[in-house]
Amino acid sequence: MLTLILAEAELERIPTSISSHPAVVSNAKQRQRKPSKMILDASFHHSAMRKLPEWRRRGRPDITHLFLLVTLDSIANKRGEVKTIVHTRNNEVIYIHPETRLIRHYPRFIGLMEQLFEKKSIETEDKTLLRLEEDKKLEDIIEEIDVDRIIGFSMNGRMVNLLEYFQSIREEGYRDIACIVGGFPSGDYHCNLRKIADDVISIYDDMLTAWTTASEITVNYENIFL
Amino acid sequence: MLTLILAEAELERIPTSISSHPAVVSNAKQRQRKPSKMILDASFHHSAMRKLPEWRRRGRPDITHLFLLVTLDSIANKRGEVKTIVHTRNNEVIYIHPETRLIRHYPRFIGLMEQLFEKKSIETEDKTLLRLEEDKKLEDIIEEIDVDRIIGFSMNGRMVNLLEYFQSIREEGYRDIACIVGGFPSGDYHCNLRKIADDVISIYDDMLTAWTTASEITVNYENIFL
Repeated sequence: MLTLILAEAELERIPTSISSHPAVVSNAKQRQRKPSKMILDASFHHSAMRKLPEWRRRGRPDITHLFLLVTLDSIANKRGEVKTIVHTRNNEVIYIHPETRLIRHYPRFIGLMEQLFEKKSIETEDKTLLRLEEDKKLEDIIEEIDVDRIIGFSMNGRMVNLLEYFQSIREEGYRDIACIVGGFPSGDYHCNLRKIADDVISIYDDMLTAWTTASEITVNYENIFL
Repeated sequence: MLTLILAEAELERIPTSISSHPAVVSNAKQRQRKPSKMILDASFHHSAMRKLPEWRRRGRPDITHLFLLVTLDSIANKRGEVKTIVHTRNNEVIYIHPETRLIRHYPRFIGLMEQLFEKKSIETEDKTLLRLEEDKKLEDIIEEIDVDRIIGFSMNGRMVNLLEYFQSIREEGYRDIACIVGGFPSGDYHCNLRKIADDVISIYDDMLTAWTTASEITVNYENIFL
């Protein structure tokens, strides 16, 4: 089993401190929603965000969307071998049912996330597709999952060939692994990844997007473990 | 070199026959554009589309967007080893410069495509990022590219393990390959893929999205050829 965790994802509601900024108010009016119930999106709220700490990296729900589309549509997930979890900058954690057919259309995905932050779960008749829990750190997720190896992906990790790396893990007799991928557009993890993960690796000598890393992980997991 | 072709992509301008439908008119008004200059999008123009032949599969620019994000951000492309081409249902062909940093935000991507269909190219100071040519069939693209093997991806192809398949191609001494992936949400190619490709293969026993297939191709190309 592969547990794929998007960590410190830049997915959050619009902070109260900027909810009365004209750019936010006009967008909220257009969408007929309250600012406090809306997801922060740098493409729409850019001018308002300059007042926020770390504004350059925040408001990127598109990263979570693309990561989820790549992960949930992967062959490994279709074979029932992937658990997908999103952890946000504000320590909300989203558990995604593997059979979720995620909305492809970005504006509708934003609507879905707004609904999830409000209701805390999205359900069909027979299952919970998305479930949100609050006040849960990355460490808390690691504690509750039961895996053989926790692997952090970071540009600052030691360079490996991922196919060979997974092969060596398999040769050690391990099969249940968790992979942690950063859900932010630039910079580094806020947490101490080396304390949380058993190993911190890098698979390319420059920044990769979260969905590129998710592609590499799911395809190579399938190559080696399935 | 890997040439990755998205074939028969459901990317087109709004056909004249539905340009006066209320759903189209209201969307055009909201976006302050002429319907004839807008990209057809099933999420916005669904009710108008029912009058179009094959309406169930049309108006899916999101598929092209996701395919391009996965392909252009792949490690294989970052290493300069990928040529990316999109062929549409109306035989327009889009050539994408490998260094294009494609817009992540879907509504802005739509704006970019509208600009491309109008101007036929998107340029920066020193290079052409996107170039559109008309009246060019998939066969015409194949004729102009110089590769050792043309591989079509289809659910109706013979089942292979892609990593082993690429390995066998490499062992035959080949390195320059073209992969054709369908850019439509369901159904089959309109063209006779078996006539165009040297081989037609399937990598999973159910439909895969175009971006999942692009992940499998780019990651395994990198595993075997780079």
